Amino acid sequence: MTLAVTSPVKILVLYDSQTGNVEHMAALVAEGAREITNTEVRIRKVGGAGDLRATPDDVLWADGLAVGSPTNMGVLSWRMKQFWDEEMGRHWMKIDGKIGCAFSSAGGWGGGMELACQSILTVLMNFGLLVFGVTDYASRDLTLHYGAVAAKAPSDEHGRAACRLLGRRLAEWTATLGHGNTSEHPGGKLAARRPAHA
Amino acid sequence: MTLAVTSPVKILVLYDSQTGNVEHMAALVAEGAREITNTEVRIRKVGGAGDLRATPDDVLWADGLAVGSPTNMGVLSWRMKQFWDEEMGRHWMKIDGKIGCAFSSAGGWGGGMELACQSILTVLMNFGLLVFGVTDYASRDLTLHYGAVAAKAPSDEHGRAACRLLGRRLAEWTATLGHGNTSEHPGGKLAARRPAHA
Amino acid sequence: MTLAVTSPVKILVLYDSQTGNVEHMAALVAEGAREITNTEVRIRKVGGAGDLRATPDDVLWADGLAVGSPTNMGVLSWRMKQFWDEEMGRHWMKIDGKIGCAFSSAGGWGGGMELACQSILTVLMNFGLLVFGVTDYASRDLTLHYGAVAAKAPSDEHGRAACRLLGRRLAEWTATLGHGNTSEHPGGKLAARRPAHA
Amino acid sequence: MTLAVTSPVKILVLYDSQTGNVEHMAALVAEGAREITNTEVRIRKVGGAGDLRATPDDVLWADGLAVGSPTNMGVLSWRMKQFWDEEMGRHWMKIDGKIGCAFSSAGGWGGGMELACQSILTVLMNFGLLVFGVTDYASRDLTLHYGAVAAKAPSDEHGRAACRLLGRRLAEWTATLGHGNTSEHPGGKLAARRPAHA
Repeated sequence: MTLAVTSPVKILVLYDSQTGNVEHMAALVAEGAREITNTEVRIRKVGGAGDLRATPDDVLWADGLAVGSPTNMGVLSWRMKQFWDEEMGRHWMKIDGKIGCAFSSAGGWGGGMELACQSILTVLMNFGLLVFGVTDYASRDLTLHYGAVAAKAPSDEHGRAACRLLGRRLAEWTATLGHGNTSEHPGGKLAARRPAHA
Repeated sequence: MTLAVTSPVKILVLYDSQTGNVEHMAALVAEGAREITNTEVRIRKVGGAGDLRATPDDVLWADGLAVGSPTNMGVLSWRMKQFWDEEMGRHWMKIDGKIGCAFSSAGGWGGGMELACQSILTVLMNFGLLVFGVTDYASRDLTLHYGAVAAKAPSDEHGRAACRLLGRRLAEWTATLGHGNTSEHPGGKLAARRPAHA
Repeated sequence: MTLAVTSPVKILVLYDSQTGNVEHMAALVAEGAREITNTEVRIRKVGGAGDLRATPDDVLWADGLAVGSPTNMGVLSWRMKQFWDEEMGRHWMKIDGKIGCAFSSAGGWGGGMELACQSILTVLMNFGLLVFGVTDYASRDLTLHYGAVAAKAPSDEHGRAACRLLGRRLAEWTATLGHGNTSEHPGGKLAARRPAHA
Repeated sequence: MTLAVTSPVKILVLYDSQTGNVEHMAALVAEGAREITNTEVRIRKVGGAGDLRATPDDVLWADGLAVGSPTNMGVLSWRMKQFWDEEMGRHWMKIDGKIGCAFSSAGGWGGGMELACQSILTVLMNFGLLVFGVTDYASRDLTLHYGAVAAKAPSDEHGRAACRLLGRRLAEWTATLGHGNTSEHPGGKLAARRPAHA
């Protein structure tokens, strides 16, 4: 049973981007999150200009977070790390139980994007978040089991679908687990989901 | 508001143990989970004898899982891996959205117990689980940010407290997020929680 | 100064394969290793038939190892893990200082191949090996910073080049560092190497 | 055969420290490296004052590097990351083949020190270094399989022994593999080494 009126699911897409590739991904993740009814989405950039600039208040506001960073030497960027070390450090033990996920772009496949996602998830787990990946495939040769990944910018519809799927799943888990809106549980939508293709 | 009667929170403590150290931890994790009202706990061993033997049905039954393995060469044991590769493989995409966490024992600190927990969490994320660590400290020099860890068996009350805390937090998150029982949210119990000690 | 006659560089390509994808990669890694003069290469399969079957003696024999596994749930396969846990376990502390690297195939990009390589490297580090990735790109969108990776089988010349490059670099490091044959140091061949393409 | 006179093995101990714990470890790692004959050791701090301040020239100078960072949210500190992202970024593909290892201190066991070491090793591998951990135990309950670790500062002789052992092994591998000084190979010193204690 879902209440007729529930408070909106609040999703933060938080990212760092130097070349624009991760920014591109962030916009797609946000798009995916908005596909779920009653979702409110903020996009914020670490060190960004004006209203786009990420602050701890954005994290405190959110029920669910997608955190994206360039893959720099196989680990999240120092700018994104600084945000969590310094600005969020004083809010440690205050954001336990939010839902989190990751996305990253590297220069090429095998360039560390999965490891960078893993490092983001490590940071989020340290803050007490529950983190997830997506079992579904975005296309025959692309999935996002530990976060959405791209070689440079998402270059085709498959790459874009992976980013959107991350945002959609984040909104689904946040609605289901954080808001008790069980109608959004992906388990009930299995027919529409895409398993691996041998 | 919590309903007067809710269905029990079903917790599986799933482990492999060769020397008995992880088995010891498993019993403590189960103890911790039982501290939360209305929790039903199963303990199962990979390759165990009789009723103790883990089966995929145990995983399907559970709302939340704590998975423990010896630290073997810095990664979960081949026996635990085999359980997920082979027996659970055919249930892939059917257990998304459950809550998961990890525990492990190594021969000594620095022996890979955190990395082994990470490898367990990687497997659980692959299956679509939401995984977490615990922000709280169990004592001045022991925490469980990525799962409960021990050098050999948990040797003192601090080590035992860490295992119990993992089980309790697992039951809390499963009650809160999986069952909408918000009264168990650890955020509401902050006064009783233990932060880092400088 | 290089001695006129040096003992051959002994390279082991050790793999597990269920679908044939990693076997395909293993053959290419071996091909790459043979590009370096005075290299002797063995290919062995965990659980393989007849002479192809990997034994601890193969590991003891080798100066350098490339270890490949299917990406199963984001971690090396239980079969490969069993080989190191059980068969190699009794040789622990006897193979320190060998050179090691990793390769893996997953169902799709983002499917955990980098994490599986990382888990292989964790096992090798536990045994005291020095492990490496390759800075060079194999093509515009493919590199092997933490091991050679493929989505299913290496599907085109780029994917095949990455596998060969791993084997070649392994032979180069083993010749240089293990045998003092400094003429094979990749630093002296920089003109032939391929950096990232923005 | 070892030449009567060989050039010194150049070891850099590079660290970041906020509370002094990692600085303490760094001094011990340097001490251990100096135990090996004909070793020249530099200690440098990221953002340090005067001559202590780390520069890319220090990294270019070294044959072997021990890199230490506080465990901040389970990953190396943003300051250490910034050094590699920004200052060292322009030297990428110029330091392949050096030998590297890691050390880290967290607030408590289970607090992410192993994961922080792993993140350091990921960065070093990205730059083409060969990285290693130490199989030996420093004491009954302490080892350094993926780098030297401490809960807060190394508090007793065991903790200090682990740091020294890391430095010594780094100098040994660098002498053996980088300089062909096979008399320093740890395999020849097995009688003096300490295996795990069941």
